Amino acid sequence: MDNVAGFPVELGYSSAVAEIVRLALAEDIGRGDITTEATVAADAMAKAVIVQKQPGVLCGMPLARLVFAALDPRVQIEPVIEEGSWGDKREVARLTGPARAILTGERTALNFIQRMSGVATMARRAAVLVEGTGAIVLDTRKTTPGHRALEKYAVRVGGHGHVRNHRAGLDDAVLIKDNHIRAAGGIAAAIEGARKRVGPAQRIEVEVTNPFELEEALRAGAEMVLLDNHTLEGLQAAVQQAAGRAKLEASGGITLDNLADVARTGVDYVSLGALTHSAGSIDFSLEVM
Amino acid sequence: MDNVAGFPVELGYSSAVAEIVRLALAEDIGRGDITTEATVAADAMAKAVIVQKQPGVLCGMPLARLVFAALDPRVQIEPVIEEGSWGDKREVARLTGPARAILTGERTALNFIQRMSGVATMARRAAVLVEGTGAIVLDTRKTTPGHRALEKYAVRVGGHGHVRNHRAGLDDAVLIKDNHIRAAGGIAAAIEGARKRVGPAQRIEVEVTNPFELEEALRAGAEMVLLDNHTLEGLQAAVQQAAGRAKLEASGGITLDNLADVARTGVDYVSLGALTHSAGSIDFSLEVM
Amino acid sequence: MDNVAGFPVELGYSSAVAEIVRLALAEDIGRGDITTEATVAADAMAKAVIVQKQPGVLCGMPLARLVFAALDPRVQIEPVIEEGSWGDKREVARLTGPARAILTGERTALNFIQRMSGVATMARRAAVLVEGTGAIVLDTRKTTPGHRALEKYAVRVGGHGHVRNHRAGLDDAVLIKDNHIRAAGGIAAAIEGARKRVGPAQRIEVEVTNPFELEEALRAGAEMVLLDNHTLEGLQAAVQQAAGRAKLEASGGITLDNLADVARTGVDYVSLGALTHSAGSIDFSLEVM
Amino acid sequence: MDNVAGFPVELGYSSAVAEIVRLALAEDIGRGDITTEATVAADAMAKAVIVQKQPGVLCGMPLARLVFAALDPRVQIEPVIEEGSWGDKREVARLTGPARAILTGERTALNFIQRMSGVATMARRAAVLVEGTGAIVLDTRKTTPGHRALEKYAVRVGGHGHVRNHRAGLDDAVLIKDNHIRAAGGIAAAIEGARKRVGPAQRIEVEVTNPFELEEALRAGAEMVLLDNHTLEGLQAAVQQAAGRAKLEASGGITLDNLADVARTGVDYVSLGALTHSAGSIDFSLEVM
Amino acid sequence: MDNVAGFPVELGYSSAVAEIVRLALAEDIGRGDITTEATVAADAMAKAVIVQKQPGVLCGMPLARLVFAALDPRVQIEPVIEEGSWGDKREVARLTGPARAILTGERTALNFIQRMSGVATMARRAAVLVEGTGAIVLDTRKTTPGHRALEKYAVRVGGHGHVRNHRAGLDDAVLIKDNHIRAAGGIAAAIEGARKRVGPAQRIEVEVTNPFELEEALRAGAEMVLLDNHTLEGLQAAVQQAAGRAKLEASGGITLDNLADVARTGVDYVSLGALTHSAGSIDFSLEVM
Amino acid sequence: MDNVAGFPVELGYSSAVAEIVRLALAEDIGRGDITTEATVAADAMAKAVIVQKQPGVLCGMPLARLVFAALDPRVQIEPVIEEGSWGDKREVARLTGPARAILTGERTALNFIQRMSGVATMARRAAVLVEGTGAIVLDTRKTTPGHRALEKYAVRVGGHGHVRNHRAGLDDAVLIKDNHIRAAGGIAAAIEGARKRVGPAQRIEVEVTNPFELEEALRAGAEMVLLDNHTLEGLQAAVQQAAGRAKLEASGGITLDNLADVARTGVDYVSLGALTHSAGSIDFSLEVM
Repeated sequence: MDNVAGFPVELGYSSAVAEIVRLALAEDIGRGDITTEATVAADAMAKAVIVQKQPGVLCGMPLARLVFAALDPRVQIEPVIEEGSWGDKREVARLTGPARAILTGERTALNFIQRMSGVATMARRAAVLVEGTGAIVLDTRKTTPGHRALEKYAVRVGGHGHVRNHRAGLDDAVLIKDNHIRAAGGIAAAIEGARKRVGPAQRIEVEVTNPFELEEALRAGAEMVLLDNHTLEGLQAAVQQAAGRAKLEASGGITLDNLADVARTGVDYVSLGALTHSAGSIDFSLEVM
Repeated sequence: MDNVAGFPVELGYSSAVAEIVRLALAEDIGRGDITTEATVAADAMAKAVIVQKQPGVLCGMPLARLVFAALDPRVQIEPVIEEGSWGDKREVARLTGPARAILTGERTALNFIQRMSGVATMARRAAVLVEGTGAIVLDTRKTTPGHRALEKYAVRVGGHGHVRNHRAGLDDAVLIKDNHIRAAGGIAAAIEGARKRVGPAQRIEVEVTNPFELEEALRAGAEMVLLDNHTLEGLQAAVQQAAGRAKLEASGGITLDNLADVARTGVDYVSLGALTHSAGSIDFSLEVM
Repeated sequence: MDNVAGFPVELGYSSAVAEIVRLALAEDIGRGDITTEATVAADAMAKAVIVQKQPGVLCGMPLARLVFAALDPRVQIEPVIEEGSWGDKREVARLTGPARAILTGERTALNFIQRMSGVATMARRAAVLVEGTGAIVLDTRKTTPGHRALEKYAVRVGGHGHVRNHRAGLDDAVLIKDNHIRAAGGIAAAIEGARKRVGPAQRIEVEVTNPFELEEALRAGAEMVLLDNHTLEGLQAAVQQAAGRAKLEASGGITLDNLADVARTGVDYVSLGALTHSAGSIDFSLEVM
Repeated sequence: MDNVAGFPVELGYSSAVAEIVRLALAEDIGRGDITTEATVAADAMAKAVIVQKQPGVLCGMPLARLVFAALDPRVQIEPVIEEGSWGDKREVARLTGPARAILTGERTALNFIQRMSGVATMARRAAVLVEGTGAIVLDTRKTTPGHRALEKYAVRVGGHGHVRNHRAGLDDAVLIKDNHIRAAGGIAAAIEGARKRVGPAQRIEVEVTNPFELEEALRAGAEMVLLDNHTLEGLQAAVQQAAGRAKLEASGGITLDNLADVARTGVDYVSLGALTHSAGSIDFSLEVM
Repeated sequence: MDNVAGFPVELGYSSAVAEIVRLALAEDIGRGDITTEATVAADAMAKAVIVQKQPGVLCGMPLARLVFAALDPRVQIEPVIEEGSWGDKREVARLTGPARAILTGERTALNFIQRMSGVATMARRAAVLVEGTGAIVLDTRKTTPGHRALEKYAVRVGGHGHVRNHRAGLDDAVLIKDNHIRAAGGIAAAIEGARKRVGPAQRIEVEVTNPFELEEALRAGAEMVLLDNHTLEGLQAAVQQAAGRAKLEASGGITLDNLADVARTGVDYVSLGALTHSAGSIDFSLEVM
Repeated sequence: MDNVAGFPVELGYSSAVAEIVRLALAEDIGRGDITTEATVAADAMAKAVIVQKQPGVLCGMPLARLVFAALDPRVQIEPVIEEGSWGDKREVARLTGPARAILTGERTALNFIQRMSGVATMARRAAVLVEGTGAIVLDTRKTTPGHRALEKYAVRVGGHGHVRNHRAGLDDAVLIKDNHIRAAGGIAAAIEGARKRVGPAQRIEVEVTNPFELEEALRAGAEMVLLDNHTLEGLQAAVQQAAGRAKLEASGGITLDNLADVARTGVDYVSLGALTHSAGSIDFSLEVM
């Protein structure tokens, strides 16, 4: 890619991505990389490799490109394997360019890659668990502040279509919870208010806690229903009760241990906050040749 | 606190903190919280509590204050327990204010608190492990991009003086690694270059990989030495060899499992990347009354 | 409202609104309002009224509040009539506060109000035309650059539920056009790709140009279909062909003159670019007492 | 042009132009163009043309260049006809470059061009009406918020020297109105205050409402006089009274219908707010080949 | 003043002033004032005074207010003497507020005041020298980058009407120099081009180097003429030659030593770059009580 | 250098440098360089030279590169002599590129160079005075707001290792003054608090005013001591008393006249605020060929 405009084409030209890169570089570099400035000539060139040191899904190379491009557009990054590949203990990319930029950007680039690969890896594990069940795993808004776009992208990279993104924010889908229902004066009023507020492309989702509320939501025209903290039996009963009148989403207390069981209850979606709040990180290093 | 200027007094008026809050709100709210807008009156007021649901160190309330103040300065937050307290299953703060602001800011505030509490909790665990050894645990630059200031603060909140911050970025301390040494033409040249570049308050640290390099670094005037990926025996030998001529820091491959052993080798500092790259998160919820 | 945080609660705390206000003030004030600075004392106070001088729907008072609050939070604005009211030749709000802030902000505040009222007024006219037809009028992305949020809000204020917002941007709904279909290798492939990319709350819309494409889109699972530049007969035929299998949206060449006819063809939605690209403006003035 | 720095050379390197482009892209793209991302390969290239579909003056191609350059500097735009040309139903430019950038930037680029061409077209009409009268038409500060620089540029492009820009903002010229006069304690005091505040290159303009005020302003050294809402007879009388002692500007209630009449009264300038608040837009489309 | 919006009413609500304050605080505070954070309680309050330690004109208190308000709006500043007063060795203001904010903002506030007072003091000296000559002293664009608005304000504060501001930037007045003349193809062409580009309130100034060019410029309609690096005799001759046909400005090689002589040649304006590039600073301190 | 990313490699990729350049261009250009726009064709190319007109150390060429690159990356700058060279009346660089960018950026580029060269020149003079004394001269935080990084860089360029940077801001070193000591409850408590707050690489400095405080500070573990406003005899006595237990820094009332005397007292460091608050400027011009 020769695009040095700072908008990441792989991530849909989102300016939020450019901003977190800028912020990350600013916080690490501050007033300047004094060690590098004092020891490395301004015109020295270098070669380096990025090495994956633990098993997992590679994710985040577009961020590495943005980090180095922000410092010096002359840094070239050649991928050895593709974004989204699973691997362990191997070179994933080769870099050439000004030595100062490579040394200064190293830690920030790795900090992005190791976290995004952690999320993609967990998404891959979840994908395997639900394959064949017909259920789709969804991520949540429990993301790292400022990293929403990156983590949702990592979920897609690792999820292979079995793990997908739920809403990106408070503005691109309606999810009516109990506080909203109380404030609006009931489920029907809340749904009607939302219907006028949002575009025709948005389905409206309502959270329910028991069969009575489920019935009320379905009759009021809810197109998706969130079943929070239900037992497996409760989920199965809800699937039967809804009988296809709306899409059903299970959430709350779900981990990789019980994910497959939840998926087999017949719900359409299982949302898994742990994908982004507890994914851990995969170790990578950058080695100058 | 009545300070609504957006600079967090608890975090030293750092503008980086204000920026990550702004970015976090922007990514979650986007073009507006459509559910809340459609269901909650603009002038409705609400009360709510923040509840800690897992054991750990409470950390991040100043961020919650910044989040809500950014949305609406009329949101009031009254702490129930103090930042830095250890606890489980309890109310930690009470909120009153405009209902829309509380509902819209909820997720972003919790996303900060749960991660910062995770880091503070791991710091507390590390602090307990090294107490009495004379060694100080240090964090690293392996932080979440954009969260450096928050995570370093959480380390201090949880660390009780036994776990402290290493350098904040590339600009406030010199750490000369092998690439810098090669580029500068040797350890002595690298140290001399750094000495002219930085202020008199900065000690210069050099990374070494064997006893010969350690000797060379000490003779060249290194004031701190980083011993990366040494065995326990190697660390003990280095302590004897240095004999107080410089402060020694052990790093690489250290976890909560071997931390106490490393601390007992006699090194001055043990740096622990896992504090910020693998701390996990503590579950919190916000409940509207 | 006492919220002086700069995030407009009425517009869903969207930071885009704060940004266009900042930009508008910056371009008008530049290095300072030299006339006011030279003639009005810094501590002079003033009273003023905003007067609507042409018939139409009042819209934009939240922007006026943001404009004056940005200059000086002491400016108080008391509404005389409500946002969304229809009227002519009357006072709509009363202001008190520092004279400099009122004089300096006057033009920028009025520039927002007159355009937003123009859009709301056209939306009101469109609403009247389709009332009783069952069709909903939708706005488009043909908005004034930087004013998307304001104009979509004005459409809602004037539209009374009969005129609503289509997607807010390229990110909150999928609209597959011919170029996308060709690039993806067919309608089915395009829909499948989109399905994996977006959240479960998003319906997928496909643009078609003839009955064959319409059939293909319906069979591939399109949940909304855009019928661009169809005749009235073509629209009626499409309504019969679709037979409720997807929502239908008519667009292209629609004006207030033919809107009612299009609405009566039985389509679900009629999109009207003129709402935002040709709405004109309503005259307002600010008069210091 | 190979300048990809984001500062538009044609618009005088003004950063305000770069900002409205950034804001326009951000509001349309948000978290990413999901349709394009899901259907078009990241490395696909495309060709396209921009077509003018209604009669008018072409204006805004520098903005189109900025829009596409911000997304991807590899997009090349070759003009077919020159900025400022009058035409109808024809290709005005050819584009080649990454398909994603062309599709994602299309709407934003067109939104700029259609409005700026609308303003330039109205300026051309006004220019024709005053040609030969000796009067110059001026624009006003009744511009679209955030678009001041663009609309003033469009006025120049369409105005051919007969329609020109009045002051760009509150900071580059003094215009003393009745509130300023009252606050300063009279016309003479207001002019004297302004004289000390502004540079020697600035002429001072004063608004008057009757012959007595006109006389007072002229005697106090006003170098320009604004005659607001005067009848044709009133304007002619003022021209005779002033007898060249100051430049005279007519404003208020002027449209294309009465512009020529006003211009023939002998005033030096006629200001026309409709140039920017009611210009309408010219339809353009982008067609991928 | 209770205005805490960050726009300085005394400096005409210019956002450039807010930006340099933000930048100044960011560069000094960086990641936080670690000394204050480590030693002063977050809720400690303090009183302090600002003391002028050298003779000169006090200037810059609005900047001090912005600095402290940005850190904590609770800091109150009470002036002891007025902005623009001449004095020496005295208290100029009293502060009360949070101790951390006062200690952290001290240096930045003083850095502004000492430089602005330096400029105002030099302006006062220049004002005294030209009093009674009829000539006005002008500042230039040789200002400190980022401080243009502050230094032009300081010139006005110190200049008492005898020293005034020349153009604020490249956009609010036309100054045609030799390169522009050559590029335009002659003085007449350059003036004509400028006349169409700028508003009617702008006088056009042309730089000339000899009597022939002066004559050409006057005949082409130049309304101001810049005489750069002329001798006293040359200036007197130009005054006679121009005979009131345009305003004359002398510049180049002028210092406080020869300013009065130049002023007595009869030119209208004398521009003095030293006002802003060589004004020096006046010493101030902040003392906590 | 081909790096056009806006981060200055010579100044350690600090974003603060990019910001002051942006701010400086914005304040000078505002809405556009109207003279150049009106007289110079958009595609005209030009050659120019930058000439040093007074004796001194050349400093600031990286800033000139950033200024012109921000306007148009096609401007090429070829150095004639090296940054840091001493000279007078000579060409220092040659420029080629778009004429508009060169004329528009001229003043801003020169405004940076003339001030930075002034600081570097004063640093050179200070360096000569202390050579051979063993003392190092330090700069202070009395820098021009927004120019901290530039002025500290100029000090290094001119200082040749004899004049160095003290702390860059409030965050990269601890300097405990009397207010901090009082707030902390004594020197020992203040040092202990600071020790826990800062990284192991930071030495802690304490300001003392008499021999008793000096002794207390040394015993409490101060690693540097600031001796403010001491006589030469007082400094000599402190050197004897400290006897190498801590580094000693003299400050207060030091000028180029008494610098050598202070340096010979045996202190390790002499801080000199005048380096940045009273350095004056060196005259440069840009001449188009």
